[in-house]
Amino acid sequence: LPDSFQLDRLAVVLVATRNPLNIGAAARAMSNFGFSCLRLVRPYEPSFREARSAVGAGEVLARAQQFASVAEAVADSALVVGTTAARHRELQQPLHRLEPGARLIRREMTRGRVALLFGSEKTGLTSADLSHCHWLLRIPTHEQNVSMNVGQAVAVCLYELIREKRAGVEPVKREMAASGDLERITRLLFEALRAAGYVKPASARASEEKLRRLVRRLSLTPGDAELLLGMLRQIGWKLRSGK
Amino acid sequence: LPDSFQLDRLAVVLVATRNPLNIGAAARAMSNFGFSCLRLVRPYEPSFREARSAVGAGEVLARAQQFASVAEAVADSALVVGTTAARHRELQQPLHRLEPGARLIRREMTRGRVALLFGSEKTGLTSADLSHCHWLLRIPTHEQNVSMNVGQAVAVCLYELIREKRAGVEPVKREMAASGDLERITRLLFEALRAAGYVKPASARASEEKLRRLVRRLSLTPGDAELLLGMLRQIGWKLRSGK
Repeated sequence: LPDSFQLDRLAVVLVATRNPLNIGAAARAMSNFGFSCLRLVRPYEPSFREARSAVGAGEVLARAQQFASVAEAVADSALVVGTTAARHRELQQPLHRLEPGARLIRREMTRGRVALLFGSEKTGLTSADLSHCHWLLRIPTHEQNVSMNVGQAVAVCLYELIREKRAGVEPVKREMAASGDLERITRLLFEALRAAGYVKPASARASEEKLRRLVRRLSLTPGDAELLLGMLRQIGWKLRSGK
Repeated sequence: LPDSFQLDRLAVVLVATRNPLNIGAAARAMSNFGFSCLRLVRPYEPSFREARSAVGAGEVLARAQQFASVAEAVADSALVVGTTAARHRELQQPLHRLEPGARLIRREMTRGRVALLFGSEKTGLTSADLSHCHWLLRIPTHEQNVSMNVGQAVAVCLYELIREKRAGVEPVKREMAASGDLERITRLLFEALRAAGYVKPASARASEEKLRRLVRRLSLTPGDAELLLGMLRQIGWKLRSGK
């Protein structure tokens, strides 16, 4: 394996997971396939404690980190991918099947960090969660029962990532901005638009998600992100001081 | 998908599974990937009942069949594959990695039935269980933690089977004997050898397993199997009547 393909560059992010067995199962699959970075966003606290203390839960769970929001959990990642059972219809972001999607993830992992998001048992990832993602990933499940158990979905995704070790790990040229910067741009843009009267209070939440998706579609380089941040800070300052 | 690739030709066989959640998880993964034939060998009874009555357990579990032995569960299968976490060292049968192994399974499924065996949570498949297999399959797990949860192992194997739908589904020419016939040959040969004084009582069990593996290595066609059966019946009759 080329050194550039480092498995610890992938963070498995479980969002609002309730069942301790599922947290443990995700950790076990990670350990089976050599991954180590597990992050939990708003886990159901007793479940997280129970999973951590389970027999054989091991190092992955011991080192798992907890975050209050998706934004914080993916802040260091240059690529954020959300898993979904949904079909094209109601999605507002590009959707890749697992196999080609894994190829894109592997490629990004040659140069930076990737976050792979899994939603809660009941609802999956919400529209707000998905708005943090650059694109979405679908395991090719059967139409009659598309929704997988989260522990099994983690296992299948990680297997696909390590399956073809040498495939698609040629580094790509363009470096991409970290999600933390993308989120800062989103917030500054949102505040600016709100200050400018563009955002209606009644639809503020939907507007914010729309903006977040837009910013992720831009494929910003770190340099461009810095540039945009400077511009938006300036605009924000102007809007506030003009009041 | 070509018609010849029928997913119900694959039986997922769980041997001595104790945890009802694992039985349920295996059934769920089957349903996710379009498989329908689940067989349980000596399941822990209360677990099977509990799994069957679980919410959303669905059709796969409702239709699951129970068997007293591996031999009966695989009797109709032309190819029997055992999953194992072990490495080459202590194995007495050919071992394939999941990806090339899945290709062989898909090919066999164009013409006949295949049984894919998963062992119990604690011990995996025993040497006796494995002796019913034509070859063994290993998911490429990490050396530090090779042993997968059975529900996750089922999910990963079935995903690999449906992943590349068109790959390796050209039918092969040679038809293979059903396992029921192979088992009959094994028994007749064993009885004949015992009657002949070849098998020592102290090592009878090990000898039987050795024989079973031998018979599976022969790649017998149905015609050859019938021929052998006839020969062995005749030898057995002679040995008994000669006493």
